[in-house]
Amino acid sequence: MVEAALRSGAASRRAVFEVFARQLPGGRRYGVVAGTGRVLDALEAFRFGDDELAFLRDNEVVDEPTLDFLAGYRFGGDVRGYPEGECYFPGSPIMTVEGTFAEAVLLETVILSILNHDCAIATAASRMVHAAGNRPIIEMGSRRTHEKAAVAAARAAYLCGFASTSNLMAGRVYGVPTAGTAAHAFTLLHDSEEQAFQAQIDSLGAGTTLLVDTYDVARAVRTAVELAGPSLGAVRLDSGDLCEVAREVRAQLDALGAHKTRIIVTSDLDEYAIAALASAPVDGYGVGTSLVTGSGVPTAALVYKLVAREDADGIMRPVAKRSVGKPSRGGLKQAFRSLDATGTAVAELVTVSGEPPADARPLQVPLVGDGEIVGRESLQAARDRHRAAVAELPVTAHQLSRGDAALPTVFD
Amino acid sequence: MVEAALRSGAASRRAVFEVFARQLPGGRRYGVVAGTGRVLDALEAFRFGDDELAFLRDNEVVDEPTLDFLAGYRFGGDVRGYPEGECYFPGSPIMTVEGTFAEAVLLETVILSILNHDCAIATAASRMVHAAGNRPIIEMGSRRTHEKAAVAAARAAYLCGFASTSNLMAGRVYGVPTAGTAAHAFTLLHDSEEQAFQAQIDSLGAGTTLLVDTYDVARAVRTAVELAGPSLGAVRLDSGDLCEVAREVRAQLDALGAHKTRIIVTSDLDEYAIAALASAPVDGYGVGTSLVTGSGVPTAALVYKLVAREDADGIMRPVAKRSVGKPSRGGLKQAFRSLDATGTAVAELVTVSGEPPADARPLQVPLVGDGEIVGRESLQAARDRHRAAVAELPVTAHQLSRGDAALPTVFD
Repeated sequence: MVEAALRSGAASRRAVFEVFARQLPGGRRYGVVAGTGRVLDALEAFRFGDDELAFLRDNEVVDEPTLDFLAGYRFGGDVRGYPEGECYFPGSPIMTVEGTFAEAVLLETVILSILNHDCAIATAASRMVHAAGNRPIIEMGSRRTHEKAAVAAARAAYLCGFASTSNLMAGRVYGVPTAGTAAHAFTLLHDSEEQAFQAQIDSLGAGTTLLVDTYDVARAVRTAVELAGPSLGAVRLDSGDLCEVAREVRAQLDALGAHKTRIIVTSDLDEYAIAALASAPVDGYGVGTSLVTGSGVPTAALVYKLVAREDADGIMRPVAKRSVGKPSRGGLKQAFRSLDATGTAVAELVTVSGEPPADARPLQVPLVGDGEIVGRESLQAARDRHRAAVAELPVTAHQLSRGDAALPTVFD
Repeated sequence: MVEAALRSGAASRRAVFEVFARQLPGGRRYGVVAGTGRVLDALEAFRFGDDELAFLRDNEVVDEPTLDFLAGYRFGGDVRGYPEGECYFPGSPIMTVEGTFAEAVLLETVILSILNHDCAIATAASRMVHAAGNRPIIEMGSRRTHEKAAVAAARAAYLCGFASTSNLMAGRVYGVPTAGTAAHAFTLLHDSEEQAFQAQIDSLGAGTTLLVDTYDVARAVRTAVELAGPSLGAVRLDSGDLCEVAREVRAQLDALGAHKTRIIVTSDLDEYAIAALASAPVDGYGVGTSLVTGSGVPTAALVYKLVAREDADGIMRPVAKRSVGKPSRGGLKQAFRSLDATGTAVAELVTVSGEPPADARPLQVPLVGDGEIVGRESLQAARDRHRAAVAELPVTAHQLSRGDAALPTVFD
């Protein structure tokens, strides 16, 4: 496309691309913007180096003028968008990229890859955090997704309120608090469960979390409290009917005087399983597979569409395709969240006229200006924003069933 | 775990970890081993550098003896496994890692991340390739998954018989053939569809593929053949009832004398949609979202379990946990595929006795010996192996419905 547009001369036309979702897949009630910070990092690093250019040349992927264009590539346009942690709805213009056609079209894949992945994970994470109430959730899904996606997933989970992650790289790169667990292998490694527990307590102290379901849960709990005393930090359950087993273990811990020992549960938990455990005596959750796979919705269905471009006379014109079932809305858009008198969100307003409505808060912020990153912020700031954005939504947003978006999107 | 095991002395015990799936998620009939080559690359690069060690020290994640161990870490053990492209079934020991407990347990996350991702994608890809018959499939899902997972997904798809990918990094890094498409944005960029088509033909020749559903398909097909002539390479359809539209476009192309112009279809295709298009006049498919998300099964549910370890007397002992619903089978295992007189696979034999059965082909190969990589091979070799391995399966393997694995796994 770039080669042909360079040749036709259209490559230098000013263009506006918009990132949005036609619908929220999986019948989600709201989406969560995540990955914006990663997009800014990627955009800053987006260059064609010698290896890339040699590959394109040797394989005759593009012609010489295109290679020259790519060799000098550096995005010099503008990006606006919903800040990270904000909620979105069908048609929300969560990111808008303005530049020449050639410079903006090249960013489609990297922007969509990051946002489609991170928004899908974040949207699932937000549901889990709400289902868990005040109980903390540890993210521990690294083993169940691509090794680099795992780091981004841990970041997105923390953004949405997870307490910590087992992914140490997410700790190092993004400052996400880290937490570890002992696996069954650690118990099996030792000649007895008692020896394994003692080794863990010797190394990590009585405040550690002992995994008690390798052999027999009741025996393991007894052994754990005998060795660590009533100040044992926690026990972890990873199998069986967690609701039932948690009740039994709570009763046993209390009978042994370990009233403060917490019960952590894991084992293919998702937001539905977490909600079902609300009345069980559980103190925290570990979530793996369902977090990193978006709990049934591993990609956010975001698209990157040309909505306006310069015409032959140099005038910006809205454009839209008319493909059956997949039409787009032309024009550079502004977005606002309309609130009622109590501060509860009632509608997503998307306008091409640019008139700010009353009682509505603007949703877009500058992210890149003339190629310079201007929208960087801490992950903590995005995490705080997410908490506030979710609190503003109507209660219907928290229905876990499939259904319509919690807010209608109103276009003008 | 490593810290506690170093302290208890158990870290240096010889240990055997096994990668296997308890079941094939999504009711798949067979799984495809993919990612082995990536595991070998990752294992060779698996080191703790200054940044990693500083993070672990500064955040008091582990103690000094553990930091010393990590600083000198280099895997020195053995890995055996099913070679890439081979099929697998529940309980197949697709990878076995032997070493000290500490050196082998550290590899769990990276090995499972790679295999869980790549096997899930490959398993979906293999179903799609079978459904497509002799028609080529282009992988074009990069925008719908994490930016690095996209490269691995393109590799896994090619391994299973996809013809090409739109991911240029997969071309550069893994030698996967690349192919591009024009997007609706290219048409919308120009002042008319005619100008857009002409620009593309000028640049890429009449053999290019023109996207014909931006406005009106029949008008676009007429314009395309007028501009490119009957030697137009292909048209792409990305919306509507593809079966019906393909028939209309085929008739129109034939009426215009463009008998050799091919019809490529895209638009959220998966193996079911591809199968449903078998009788339509379609010449090739582009598959995106459903490939990179494993068509409903984004992770392969592979686990990494300790199955044997040295005891206090230095004797190797099989070990297995007894967790409710998630038991494991102890012991170092050998695996064979049992074939009938016609060469059709009839069972997966998994044995701890090590006796090779008659009429069965051994499934495991050496991958790493004393820390040295010995199992590297070309992606083409793995691709050839996959074709042969699938051809050997009974026809029930190709049922797209959810159901039992195509082969029973027989343990002794």
